[in-house]
Amino acid sequence: MQQQSSYCKITFLNIGISKFYSKTILAINVNAKQVKIPLLKKFQPPIIIVNFKTYLEATGEKAVELAKKTEKVSLETKVSIGVAPQFTDIATVAKAVSIPVFAQHIDPIQPGSHTGHVLAASVEETGAIGTLINHSERQLKLSDVDAIIKITREHSLVSVVCANNPNISAAVASLEPDIIAIEPPELIGTGIPVSKAKPQVITDTIKLVREINEKVVILCGAGISRGEDVKAALKLGTQGVLVASGIVKAKDPYMVLREFAEATRF
Amino acid sequence: MQQQSSYCKITFLNIGISKFYSKTILAINVNAKQVKIPLLKKFQPPIIIVNFKTYLEATGEKAVELAKKTEKVSLETKVSIGVAPQFTDIATVAKAVSIPVFAQHIDPIQPGSHTGHVLAASVEETGAIGTLINHSERQLKLSDVDAIIKITREHSLVSVVCANNPNISAAVASLEPDIIAIEPPELIGTGIPVSKAKPQVITDTIKLVREINEKVVILCGAGISRGEDVKAALKLGTQGVLVASGIVKAKDPYMVLREFAEATRF
Amino acid sequence: MQQQSSYCKITFLNIGISKFYSKTILAINVNAKQVKIPLLKKFQPPIIIVNFKTYLEATGEKAVELAKKTEKVSLETKVSIGVAPQFTDIATVAKAVSIPVFAQHIDPIQPGSHTGHVLAASVEETGAIGTLINHSERQLKLSDVDAIIKITREHSLVSVVCANNPNISAAVASLEPDIIAIEPPELIGTGIPVSKAKPQVITDTIKLVREINEKVVILCGAGISRGEDVKAALKLGTQGVLVASGIVKAKDPYMVLREFAEATRF
Amino acid sequence: MQQQSSYCKITFLNIGISKFYSKTILAINVNAKQVKIPLLKKFQPPIIIVNFKTYLEATGEKAVELAKKTEKVSLETKVSIGVAPQFTDIATVAKAVSIPVFAQHIDPIQPGSHTGHVLAASVEETGAIGTLINHSERQLKLSDVDAIIKITREHSLVSVVCANNPNISAAVASLEPDIIAIEPPELIGTGIPVSKAKPQVITDTIKLVREINEKVVILCGAGISRGEDVKAALKLGTQGVLVASGIVKAKDPYMVLREFAEATRF
Repeated sequence: MQQQSSYCKITFLNIGISKFYSKTILAINVNAKQVKIPLLKKFQPPIIIVNFKTYLEATGEKAVELAKKTEKVSLETKVSIGVAPQFTDIATVAKAVSIPVFAQHIDPIQPGSHTGHVLAASVEETGAIGTLINHSERQLKLSDVDAIIKITREHSLVSVVCANNPNISAAVASLEPDIIAIEPPELIGTGIPVSKAKPQVITDTIKLVREINEKVVILCGAGISRGEDVKAALKLGTQGVLVASGIVKAKDPYMVLREFAEATRF
Repeated sequence: MQQQSSYCKITFLNIGISKFYSKTILAINVNAKQVKIPLLKKFQPPIIIVNFKTYLEATGEKAVELAKKTEKVSLETKVSIGVAPQFTDIATVAKAVSIPVFAQHIDPIQPGSHTGHVLAASVEETGAIGTLINHSERQLKLSDVDAIIKITREHSLVSVVCANNPNISAAVASLEPDIIAIEPPELIGTGIPVSKAKPQVITDTIKLVREINEKVVILCGAGISRGEDVKAALKLGTQGVLVASGIVKAKDPYMVLREFAEATRF
Repeated sequence: MQQQSSYCKITFLNIGISKFYSKTILAINVNAKQVKIPLLKKFQPPIIIVNFKTYLEATGEKAVELAKKTEKVSLETKVSIGVAPQFTDIATVAKAVSIPVFAQHIDPIQPGSHTGHVLAASVEETGAIGTLINHSERQLKLSDVDAIIKITREHSLVSVVCANNPNISAAVASLEPDIIAIEPPELIGTGIPVSKAKPQVITDTIKLVREINEKVVILCGAGISRGEDVKAALKLGTQGVLVASGIVKAKDPYMVLREFAEATRF
Repeated sequence: MQQQSSYCKITFLNIGISKFYSKTILAINVNAKQVKIPLLKKFQPPIIIVNFKTYLEATGEKAVELAKKTEKVSLETKVSIGVAPQFTDIATVAKAVSIPVFAQHIDPIQPGSHTGHVLAASVEETGAIGTLINHSERQLKLSDVDAIIKITREHSLVSVVCANNPNISAAVASLEPDIIAIEPPELIGTGIPVSKAKPQVITDTIKLVREINEKVVILCGAGISRGEDVKAALKLGTQGVLVASGIVKAKDPYMVLREFAEATRF
């Protein structure tokens, strides 16, 4: 038998989301013919989002590698896990994996003369499904947080707004983002988990936020390094975690992330 | 033997530059075997850099299309033309074309905990050969301009620093970037060419800069819309132009850019 | 009869406030002997705050003159009216008048190495009783709005936080300032009164804010130019107005302010 | 005749400067009659400028006390010494002393709608003769440094631009300020004197700056704590020092400042 089917390429084209569902198109190219199969992938609590920051361990090719390990854990455990690579890596990562991809920031701008800024439409076109907003390392003016959340709605992007303390979380709740992530900045990158060191920050946040907004998903972050930290976070009432160095700088990111994912099932 | 050479893919892998040369690797994949041929591409005056800003006409797939038109003009005319797409499009554009690609901005940071920032290493890994710095739409603290120029040197990235007026251009000259682009902000996007409306801004800039720095390449920009504007810019003593809406928002970007490129040969 | 009592100076020393009361000390110097008489001045709704911005008509000596006219209206009408002069004029104005004086901004800093910043303690020592925060011309990061409100509490300063729209007003309400001033930025300085052009912005703000915070005083601003605009603002449920050009740039600020003050009694 | 000269008040009204001369009017009030005597006070190298930052030890009444001690040293030693108190204290300090007073920062704005900003005209009207610009604790965009220097010229204010390193100092030299102060930020507040720990930073600065600008006065700062540090700074070729904690936080500021002033005569 002579082989004909000489080139077969399978790609997942993320084309946007309907809130917590990641609309994915499975595109199969067989000898120049393409078949597209739409898939609906759930992205729902418990949620883990891995922030790649600007770590060299998660830059360029290594961003793709880490995203693939994350996808592996997500597929194996059925836990919703997203990744937030650098702007320059979003397109490549979104092409390489089927899990949800987030930007780390977008700017409160419309298309036009804005050299060096990050446009929602460009993030959307890469296949990312959402963006972090107001991370403690990229804090924004109050009116810009509001403007960016409104822009994410226009683009069907998921908004993940970070907040430093319970009061700020409550303030953010009035702006009606999809997800709030409470992260005490003094614990970020320390390995001291917020869920154990400052449980009251989390419970206060949940209490204040829920008085204002019943729908918003609440995550916590900062210092999360072990499965038990994730478990503690969920027990306190959060719906997931935002993590970074605990995974990115781990000796074996796959193993630690797998521990995190399994800890969500208790 | 039956197999026809069924899959042949040719890609150019930009892997950095040695100042005004773009080191490119021509990678030919023939049925899983890859042959790499190093090329040295000149990027030298007269220079045209096309800033894609955050125009929808130059976002995502359209960024790739515009970059390909630019490459076509560059190949046909032998004029050095670079493109500066959005962060999210750099990787895709740099893979699609062999002409030099620039970021529109990088941040004065080292790898680490800097969510939502732009790392030089990530830009370099995409295959971009340099970056715009301090564009009037993304102005920076003086000490950050200095820090970013130093970072570009560590990464062999070409630094293109924008300046508003002759005095600021002279100030930038002391920081020893590779390229200075003088752009009076009041003319940006107007279609009124700096080279005709404010020739003295250009001649004063050249005079003041050359007293301090003999090597730096001097471009001008703002309002450049026709070939004669480019010609006027070169006659005043600049070594090229930085353009944006004149190309990006033109009805036929290829034709206008070709006119620009041809105008450099007078 | 030989005159002896040659020098008698009366000054009002504002020494801080207990929320909406301005603790003032009346200091009478008679030939080197000083008598201090403590006064308690109410600062309570309906409230008018006149923001001097950086108008030349309200800079230096003219700031003192305008503050004296404001004091005259306040004394004549018994309406609580405060003034917010520039940083450099606060001390002089606070010595010259007995009405409440506000800073236009303070920074989220503690005493120390912060060249060129505005310290709460320095504002307090001038005799000012509070500060504007997050004015649309001096917008702040969300976490800084929170930090500054906390600092005002430590210094018994009244916090007047400006907000652009109803959602942002609601967000601010969670941070528990003393006063929220809703000001649609597109109407600031236009003479088109928010209370007539965008009544729903005001009623929505009141509704959203009151769901979160029952105590905070709600003002509105932008375009307020006539007594009837003030009246309309109060009828919509606000407790006063924040005004600037309507008074500062009026031909006869005293007359316009008197009209404003009288309009609060309907 | 019976009348004793019962009230005599002498004040110095600083009304601006002609570059390095402080135009002062000596105003003598004798029983309601005022005699004005214009004085010209030199402010010329060697220069010491004391930056009060936002130290509590130099806030409000303590700012006036420290300024008076500084004036005493200046009068006793005939050395030009200026003070840079907080915005809120400039007016009071400028009225209390005859030595030159500087703002710590001004904004690149014209009079108008700029709530919470610092207007050159307001600083000038307080009697201050100049301003620090771009201190490492209040860094500015390159174009704003340029704009503010131009504004100081319009207002006859002395511009003292701070720079982090020799390259940045050279860049600033092209903007033609009156004074450049080189301060390596890593030494600020450490008590490790730049003039001893990093002499090459100073000599490189002088070399690079003098190639571009022969007139600008060059100061250095950071860690200056003893007379010998001042002496070392002048021996390296500077024309004075910018100091802060070394004086403000000294147990006896008068004694340390007197040591500094005497060290300028070697």
